[in-house]
Amino acid sequence: MTDPRDTTLILDPKYDANGLVTAVATDRTSGALLMVAHMNAEALAATIATREAHFWSRSRAKLWKKGETSGHVLTVRDIRIDCDQDAVWLIVDPAGPACHTGAASCFYRRIDGDRLIPVE
Amino acid sequence: MTDPRDTTLILDPKYDANGLVTAVATDRTSGALLMVAHMNAEALAATIATREAHFWSRSRAKLWKKGETSGHVLTVRDIRIDCDQDAVWLIVDPAGPACHTGAASCFYRRIDGDRLIPVE
Repeated sequence: MTDPRDTTLILDPKYDANGLVTAVATDRTSGALLMVAHMNAEALAATIATREAHFWSRSRAKLWKKGETSGHVLTVRDIRIDCDQDAVWLIVDPAGPACHTGAASCFYRRIDGDRLIPVE
Repeated sequence: MTDPRDTTLILDPKYDANGLVTAVATDRTSGALLMVAHMNAEALAATIATREAHFWSRSRAKLWKKGETSGHVLTVRDIRIDCDQDAVWLIVDPAGPACHTGAASCFYRRIDGDRLIPVE
C-alpha cells in the first residue's frame, strides 16, 4: 500500500472526522512519554509558530495552550509526523509536571493483568 | 478535577465512541517513538496476555497482531496507562522496522513550517 502521504515532503495532516490528529509529547532529556492529546489545525499551527505545545481540548471544546494556567508549558524542540500524517510527535522540554495530577508524566501506572501498579 | 480513573489501581480503560484507546509504542533501547495506533478491548487483552503488540485496524476493521505478515513483531516489555485511562504506552523491543514503509519508526520526517524534512 502506497499512500502519497507516506512520501511527500509537504505537510498535509490527515485529520479525523472531528478534525483532529493525535499528538504525543516525549521528554527530550529522559525520553519518557509525557502525555497524549489531540490537535486540530489551529493547535498544530500555533505549536509550529510559537514552539510551545498547544492542543485541542475535547472536553472543553477549545484551543488549549498546555500550561496556560499551571505555567507548566512544554517547549517544543522538534516536531515530527508519522507516515500517514495522522499523528504528531513533540520532543519537548517541560517546565514542570506534564500531568494535571502533578505527576511528571501522565503514564504513572503500569498495567499488570487487570491491576495497575504505580511507577517511579 | 478529580476523576476516579486518575487514582484507581484497577484497569478501567476509557474507550471512545468507537470502542478504542490510543496506543503508543516506544523502543526500549533507543527511546524513539515507533508508532501510534489504536486498541479495542480485545487488542489490549491480547497484548497483555501474549506480550506481543496487538492493535485494532480501523481501515480493515479487524484485530491485527503487529508483524503477523512482516514478522516485525513488537515484544512488549512494559505497558503503562495514562491518568484518565484513554491511552496506553507500550515499551517494546522491535523485531524489525516498525513502519510499513520499512523505516525503523513511522516518524521519519520533521515538520519545518509547511514542509517536511527526512530525519535519520
